[in-house]
Amino acid sequence: MADYILHCMAESGHSYKVALMLQLCGADWKPRWVDFFNGETRTDEFRTTYNELGEVPVLETGGQMMTQSGVILDFLAEKLGRFGWENETERREILRWTLFDNHKISSQLGVLRFLRTFAKTGETDTTKWLETRCRSALAILNKHLARNAFAIGDKPTIADFSLCGYMFYEGELGIDLNEYGNVAAWLERIKSLPGWDHPNNLMPRQATPGAS
Amino acid sequence: MADYILHCMAESGHSYKVALMLQLCGADWKPRWVDFFNGETRTDEFRTTYNELGEVPVLETGGQMMTQSGVILDFLAEKLGRFGWENETERREILRWTLFDNHKISSQLGVLRFLRTFAKTGETDTTKWLETRCRSALAILNKHLARNAFAIGDKPTIADFSLCGYMFYEGELGIDLNEYGNVAAWLERIKSLPGWDHPNNLMPRQATPGAS
Repeated sequence: MADYILHCMAESGHSYKVALMLQLCGADWKPRWVDFFNGETRTDEFRTTYNELGEVPVLETGGQMMTQSGVILDFLAEKLGRFGWENETERREILRWTLFDNHKISSQLGVLRFLRTFAKTGETDTTKWLETRCRSALAILNKHLARNAFAIGDKPTIADFSLCGYMFYEGELGIDLNEYGNVAAWLERIKSLPGWDHPNNLMPRQATPGAS
Repeated sequence: MADYILHCMAESGHSYKVALMLQLCGADWKPRWVDFFNGETRTDEFRTTYNELGEVPVLETGGQMMTQSGVILDFLAEKLGRFGWENETERREILRWTLFDNHKISSQLGVLRFLRTFAKTGETDTTKWLETRCRSALAILNKHLARNAFAIGDKPTIADFSLCGYMFYEGELGIDLNEYGNVAAWLERIKSLPGWDHPNNLMPRQATPGAS
C-alpha cells in the first residue's frame, strides 16, 4: 500500500493542489477516484468515512483521513520537508495567500468553471457576476506577481500550489489567463518545476477522458 | 497609541472576527473606520499603504500591517495566549475550520448579505443560487455542532470567531439561522463568553447607524 492515498478526481482543482505537491516531492502515493458527478461526496457513507465536509480532496495516510487542501499541504510541507516555511513570518505569508486563494481565487474560479463546463448553464447573470469577481481577484494576483516570482517571494511554496489549483484547465474557465501576463508567466514557472504534470495525468477523470 | 489599530467597519464580518478576538482578550485596541462603501479599499493609496488585497480587516501593530483575518487571528492567538492551540493536531483542526469558513461560510454569507442588504439587488437567480450554497454549508456546520460545543471540540478558539463572523447581523442575511438549531445554540454559547459584544458596538458603522 502506498504511503499516501489521495481520494480525488482529475476535475477537482482542490485535489490537484495536493496531487501536485505529492508529485513534485516524489512521494509514494496513489489516487483513488471519487465519483463526484454521481454524488459520492454527498452520501452519508462518504461523509462518515472520509469527510464530514462532503468534499475532496481527502488524504489517507497512517490510518488517518485528512481534509481541506490547505491543511493537507501544511501537513505535507512539514512531513516531506519541501515547499514550506523557514520561520513564522514565512508560515503566515503562506497562510495569507492560501486563505486568499480559498476565499477569492480557487473558490470562485472553481465554481465559475463548474457552471460553464459541467452544469452547462450557459451565460447567465450568475456566471457574469462570478466572472467579474474572478477577474478582480486575478488582477490582484497579477499585480502581486509583477514583483514576486512566486506567491511569497523567490521560491515556490504550497501557497503557489493552492493558488494554481484551477488554472491548468485551459478552456474550461471561460477566462483567458493570458490576459493576466504575470499570472501566465508564473504558471509557466510552476510548469517548469521538475516533475510537474497536468491534473488529467495525475488523477483519474471520468467526464471527458483525456480532455484538458 | 493603542497596541492594536484595527482598520475596519462594523458592516464587515471579516473585521468582526478580529474585533471580537481583541475584545474577548481585553487587548488595548482601537478601530479606525474604513470608508468601504465609498471605495476606500479600492484606491491605490489603500492598496499601497494598507493591503494589496484591497480588503479589510487590516491590523496595524508594531509598525506592521497584517492582513487576512485568518492570519491575524493566528497571530493574536499566539501573541495574546488565548483561543489558540495546544499542539499541532489542534492547530490543524483550527486551520481546517478556518479554511472551510473562508471557502464556504463567511465568504458566501458575506456576499449574499451584501447583495440583499447593501446592493439591494432584490431576489435574483444569483441570490437564490447563493442561498442554496449557503444553506448547504450551514447544514454541514449544524451537523458538526450536534457533536461539538465549539468548532474543534469543547473549548472556543479562533476558528469559532472566524465561522461566526457574519452570523450576528440578524435580518441582513435573509436566512433565519434558527432553522439550524445547533448553529443557533453555538452562537448563544459565543454570546455568553465574558466580554462578547455585537459588531455594531465594537466598530464604527456608517450606512445605517445603530442597526443590527
